Amino acid sequence: MTSTVLMEELDAFTYREMVGRGAPVIVPVGAIEQHGPHLPLQTDVLLAKAMSRRLAEDVDGIVAAPVVYGYKSQQRSGGGNHLAGTTSLDATTVIAIARTLTLEFARHGVRQVVFLNGHFENYQFLYEGVELATTELVQRGLKVSAILLSYWDFVDDATIEEIYRGSFPGWDVEHGGVLETSLMLHLHPELVHAERVMDLPAAQLPRFDRLPARPELTPVSGCLSSAAAASESAGRLLLERTSAALADTIGAELRTQHMVTAHATPGPNTL
Amino acid sequence: MTSTVLMEELDAFTYREMVGRGAPVIVPVGAIEQHGPHLPLQTDVLLAKAMSRRLAEDVDGIVAAPVVYGYKSQQRSGGGNHLAGTTSLDATTVIAIARTLTLEFARHGVRQVVFLNGHFENYQFLYEGVELATTELVQRGLKVSAILLSYWDFVDDATIEEIYRGSFPGWDVEHGGVLETSLMLHLHPELVHAERVMDLPAAQLPRFDRLPARPELTPVSGCLSSAAAASESAGRLLLERTSAALADTIGAELRTQHMVTAHATPGPNTL
Amino acid sequence: MTSTVLMEELDAFTYREMVGRGAPVIVPVGAIEQHGPHLPLQTDVLLAKAMSRRLAEDVDGIVAAPVVYGYKSQQRSGGGNHLAGTTSLDATTVIAIARTLTLEFARHGVRQVVFLNGHFENYQFLYEGVELATTELVQRGLKVSAILLSYWDFVDDATIEEIYRGSFPGWDVEHGGVLETSLMLHLHPELVHAERVMDLPAAQLPRFDRLPARPELTPVSGCLSSAAAASESAGRLLLERTSAALADTIGAELRTQHMVTAHATPGPNTL
Amino acid sequence: MTSTVLMEELDAFTYREMVGRGAPVIVPVGAIEQHGPHLPLQTDVLLAKAMSRRLAEDVDGIVAAPVVYGYKSQQRSGGGNHLAGTTSLDATTVIAIARTLTLEFARHGVRQVVFLNGHFENYQFLYEGVELATTELVQRGLKVSAILLSYWDFVDDATIEEIYRGSFPGWDVEHGGVLETSLMLHLHPELVHAERVMDLPAAQLPRFDRLPARPELTPVSGCLSSAAAASESAGRLLLERTSAALADTIGAELRTQHMVTAHATPGPNTL
Amino acid sequence: MTSTVLMEELDAFTYREMVGRGAPVIVPVGAIEQHGPHLPLQTDVLLAKAMSRRLAEDVDGIVAAPVVYGYKSQQRSGGGNHLAGTTSLDATTVIAIARTLTLEFARHGVRQVVFLNGHFENYQFLYEGVELATTELVQRGLKVSAILLSYWDFVDDATIEEIYRGSFPGWDVEHGGVLETSLMLHLHPELVHAERVMDLPAAQLPRFDRLPARPELTPVSGCLSSAAAASESAGRLLLERTSAALADTIGAELRTQHMVTAHATPGPNTL
Amino acid sequence: MTSTVLMEELDAFTYREMVGRGAPVIVPVGAIEQHGPHLPLQTDVLLAKAMSRRLAEDVDGIVAAPVVYGYKSQQRSGGGNHLAGTTSLDATTVIAIARTLTLEFARHGVRQVVFLNGHFENYQFLYEGVELATTELVQRGLKVSAILLSYWDFVDDATIEEIYRGSFPGWDVEHGGVLETSLMLHLHPELVHAERVMDLPAAQLPRFDRLPARPELTPVSGCLSSAAAASESAGRLLLERTSAALADTIGAELRTQHMVTAHATPGPNTL
Repeated sequence: MTSTVLMEELDAFTYREMVGRGAPVIVPVGAIEQHGPHLPLQTDVLLAKAMSRRLAEDVDGIVAAPVVYGYKSQQRSGGGNHLAGTTSLDATTVIAIARTLTLEFARHGVRQVVFLNGHFENYQFLYEGVELATTELVQRGLKVSAILLSYWDFVDDATIEEIYRGSFPGWDVEHGGVLETSLMLHLHPELVHAERVMDLPAAQLPRFDRLPARPELTPVSGCLSSAAAASESAGRLLLERTSAALADTIGAELRTQHMVTAHATPGPNTL
Repeated sequence: MTSTVLMEELDAFTYREMVGRGAPVIVPVGAIEQHGPHLPLQTDVLLAKAMSRRLAEDVDGIVAAPVVYGYKSQQRSGGGNHLAGTTSLDATTVIAIARTLTLEFARHGVRQVVFLNGHFENYQFLYEGVELATTELVQRGLKVSAILLSYWDFVDDATIEEIYRGSFPGWDVEHGGVLETSLMLHLHPELVHAERVMDLPAAQLPRFDRLPARPELTPVSGCLSSAAAASESAGRLLLERTSAALADTIGAELRTQHMVTAHATPGPNTL
Repeated sequence: MTSTVLMEELDAFTYREMVGRGAPVIVPVGAIEQHGPHLPLQTDVLLAKAMSRRLAEDVDGIVAAPVVYGYKSQQRSGGGNHLAGTTSLDATTVIAIARTLTLEFARHGVRQVVFLNGHFENYQFLYEGVELATTELVQRGLKVSAILLSYWDFVDDATIEEIYRGSFPGWDVEHGGVLETSLMLHLHPELVHAERVMDLPAAQLPRFDRLPARPELTPVSGCLSSAAAASESAGRLLLERTSAALADTIGAELRTQHMVTAHATPGPNTL
Repeated sequence: MTSTVLMEELDAFTYREMVGRGAPVIVPVGAIEQHGPHLPLQTDVLLAKAMSRRLAEDVDGIVAAPVVYGYKSQQRSGGGNHLAGTTSLDATTVIAIARTLTLEFARHGVRQVVFLNGHFENYQFLYEGVELATTELVQRGLKVSAILLSYWDFVDDATIEEIYRGSFPGWDVEHGGVLETSLMLHLHPELVHAERVMDLPAAQLPRFDRLPARPELTPVSGCLSSAAAASESAGRLLLERTSAALADTIGAELRTQHMVTAHATPGPNTL
Repeated sequence: MTSTVLMEELDAFTYREMVGRGAPVIVPVGAIEQHGPHLPLQTDVLLAKAMSRRLAEDVDGIVAAPVVYGYKSQQRSGGGNHLAGTTSLDATTVIAIARTLTLEFARHGVRQVVFLNGHFENYQFLYEGVELATTELVQRGLKVSAILLSYWDFVDDATIEEIYRGSFPGWDVEHGGVLETSLMLHLHPELVHAERVMDLPAAQLPRFDRLPARPELTPVSGCLSSAAAASESAGRLLLERTSAALADTIGAELRTQHMVTAHATPGPNTL
Repeated sequence: MTSTVLMEELDAFTYREMVGRGAPVIVPVGAIEQHGPHLPLQTDVLLAKAMSRRLAEDVDGIVAAPVVYGYKSQQRSGGGNHLAGTTSLDATTVIAIARTLTLEFARHGVRQVVFLNGHFENYQFLYEGVELATTELVQRGLKVSAILLSYWDFVDDATIEEIYRGSFPGWDVEHGGVLETSLMLHLHPELVHAERVMDLPAAQLPRFDRLPARPELTPVSGCLSSAAAASESAGRLLLERTSAALADTIGAELRTQHMVTAHATPGPNTL
């Protein structure tokens, strides 16, 4: 058995030792959401987990077991929650999960928690859950700090240009498109049906949301832009560049915080 | 007494008559949030209400009484909820308000509800509330349709260029900046302390959120960019262009929906 | 720009200065509720706000932005929540609003919060929200004190007699009647359709509640007693007498509390 | 074994038979609340139950098992929830209990539910619970009607005068006073320590609520007025008159409703 | 008037004295649930209360007013919640009741709370409520300890053998069977219709739950095994043995805890 | 790419096809919980997933993405929730997850949902979530049926005897013991540190729960009984026998239900 950064594969004794040494915990958050005929329903989980694993390796951290189910898919970012296959939680449940996990890691003695999001619609609800938890922890006198991010915010413009060559359709319609498909081709090719990609024009979505959704606004593929230009090499590039940017930025942030609290003795809280 | 589109000023009999004629209801949603030393705490409420009023006049609609208190200010879009003056609700409360108002207007016989948002952080929570309500209404067999929007999504690039002349700092740091200050100078000059604008560099904010917030990341003004270049004329331009875009886009959407349901007889539901 | 006691018109810097000097915050709580064909839907908001403003001026306080939407109208006090126009929140939402606002003002450094109610049905739910907040604050070691009141409890018998001359129908049926209409004629005549008052007998309501409500028990005007005898002068008298009683009673209470805590240094809490 | 109207003593088969014949269900709601040194903590439960039993006998109904714990005692009506012995639920729990019981009785096939309240502070929360349930039942197409009342609203002025001889202190300070003590002396003399009554002046309570409560405003007895004048005969009179008024008013209301729905076949819902 | 351990019969002054001496509070938790044609709907309440009373007498404790309504009946342990007469609360309500009662007793100064359960389905929800409360109390620095138990876990194998003589059908189908009926014959014979016992074979229930329940799996009696062999003497034996085991085990546990905290001064908390 | 029964690996189009053919969905539910020094934190997830996969293959079903985080570990069944590594959700969150997933699968057109539990403490909360969902679905007229089970209820006595040879310590202390360790040795040997098994006596746990837990009652290993006798062959036997029992029992139940609804046309619901 080899060493791992995945909490789910760790035994409790090893986990406690790592937490005792000050390891931050990184929580990948995804969704079970349709991603067209060529990508699996867990695409967002796998990509969040892959990014989290690389970050954990870079910052000597632990990847928590993933949050598998996420907030409802919205038509302008994920096709809409009327589509079969997409399996979502209400906002209050996502909030409760983020809040409780933060409190649980704090109880273990963890002092830095990172929520690494892979499903656009989750973000604000994760924020609220973490906000409630950290406010409570401050009131109880515990110094626990949380970071929230969506991994695509760390894809830089140069990489976009290198991959899309001027045809970047915008993040808003990247659902099931070149970025996600390329990353999956690189990371989990056995789960991609490249031959089933539907090469349709990008969705034309309004500047507002409408509910109930109008199903006809979502392309029949369920994807908001075409993945026809996706490639394994683009995926590798995206993973490398984004992982590096995450390691730089978040790593620096975690070290900064660590210095501040270096004199405190980490360890499980008695409550 | 003159005619009004403001529900708060209407008596119930006139309101019912307007609803009976098929008037959509537009709900302005704001916040009580610090906007620096030169703008009042209700800035988001006033701007959402002004935009709603113009839209209502264009589409023969009704402006609901505003939702005054909104979701917590976030550091990257509003300076952060640690600042005194900013007075916010939890996510579940904002969700409940949006859900219940949608159900109440549906009970009145309203068939089209528009939530017009003036505070960035509200959006996803309004979405959830409206999603819960419209799903319930569909299950009960009621055809009610809701639209959600943030008014700045209707400011076009040409207007931005005309006002900022190449120095647009990005929407993310527009809190208390040129856009909001110009609109307020045009709409409510008596509430603006132009002489107190603090001409500081735009905030440098990271690509992630951190909680608890680091107060030092927010400029001492509480504004994320400088309002020094704001002017009444820019405000007038912004209001005119944005109102026109709203009237075009949302007006068309409302008319489309109306045609579909024209044969149904609107009227108060007995429950 | 002149000085104001309205938080919504204050900028954050001035607000903080006033809080730093120990100003109490007075929260007007109303409702969007039908008040017959002659009064606007926001009647309860406007009256709570007017009373709050006078009290703030007398006690050197601040009037918070109003709570605009309130608890469901009940048939025996407001005609019932089956009527179109009346737009209400569930109990849990009203509770959450009162609880959160109290906690937010406490975070700002406010040490005295007054909820001034203008809609009968709100009272117990405001109480619960404030009870939850103050209990939590005591547990966290913060000395914050809250006062709750409905303004009509400060109308004295002599004034009632002076205005009604023996024909006072009782507070239970004063919805949309002489008191509210007179106050509105004095404060906001432009919003009153005096000519549309329906001079109907007072409602005969049972000693119990029934749900679902029997619509036929509410007069067709939506008012529980006639406003035909309302007048601007009665409104002025009511406002003066009630404001004076509020200033005396609540002012004394606020001063008492202030003396007790005078040695503590008010100021924003770091949480 | 003799016949009973108490659901708690009935077996399920007999209960179903009674429901099948159209029996209304009356739910007594009390509290566990200090009532001074002379009355037991369950006073409100016992009085609500006694009134319910008489009403059930008069209208051929069933008395549900009592709701024993109620909403928090308030200083102006019950001495305050800071007193030991008083054991209370939060508002949301009382609301949930009232809502769920209404839905459960509706599931059994009951068509008329009466909540008979014996603790002042419960009323609005029971109302909300019943409102939520009956609204849901209407939406599901079930004709279930609910009545809510507090028994003291059926004590008439003549009885008050006969008992108090002009010294009635007002309902607001009747907690642990002549009314409750007299009723208990008549119904449960073995639970009354008449010799421990503390003959103190009635509480002087302000026209507002303050939280946290000022303990010194509640008399040391915990009672808001003196029970020294209580007697078994006054209790008998109160019980007879109030029961008769309840039987008349509520009995008539129940019969009215019954006629309307006489053609429907009552019986357990399959859900 | 004689001494009592029942909180509901105690006045507040006597209750406070007992709490001040360190008395633990025992909370009987039951249900309103069909128990066939021969047992009353409150069987679980009465049995939990009887066991609690004996335990209180043995450990110098107080029996709280019972929690009368419990969690939904499940088909494999109570016949199912589709049956009329069974009147149940949702899980969140049971959780809230257990949580709040624990906090209220802690506020009174009680340092040991025992939840004595008489309805199988309640257990996990009581656990959650007590877990939430004790975690909160630890965070607030209060040393309050809670014990949870179901009384049948204290019936030993020898007693089972003595009563059933090898025909014990298993606890899973003991609903309305020999154990409960015997205990009721001993404790409340006037509430048992022994002549109406339906002598049917024990229910054959699967190793899984199915929802919605299949009504045909529950015997028409509503009982999961026959009570034909029940007797008053078996009830007396069960009560004696179980009470003794409870007194031994729980009594020892309470004394252990008491020694630990003996130096602390029990008394009402100021919050 | 080969065929799979795992929803997480399926694309949405294939998933819809399988649902359209009437495939039941099986939801594995686990926990992140310490299992001693020799088993990974995700043991309960992996075992529930393995059992679900075999059942899905036998009944032509789909395995939903697992519910990874579960309810709090209890001392008598999992060592207690005070231990670091154990990472748990509150009851209301587990209930919400089970409720929402059932509703989401129903929205997809699924007509049979099975929750296959691998963590003792989850069961009652899953039950409540499923109960709420199926009750709501019945009220909306949708025929959806749910099954709940814990896999160890399908381990028969003969297998127990074959593996333990008379030394079975009871299910209550099987946490981290022979059963789970053997199954993991068979299914995921790379995740087991067999050499780190601590061969301690089985825990002696009382017949009641106490909160806060007494840490000293849990063996230092975190396991409630020794896994020293675990073996890969015992794991294979357990998996085969249990899978067969599940296939027989649940397969039969699913076919029964299927016949009943064979005439209905499965397919995604429009809501």
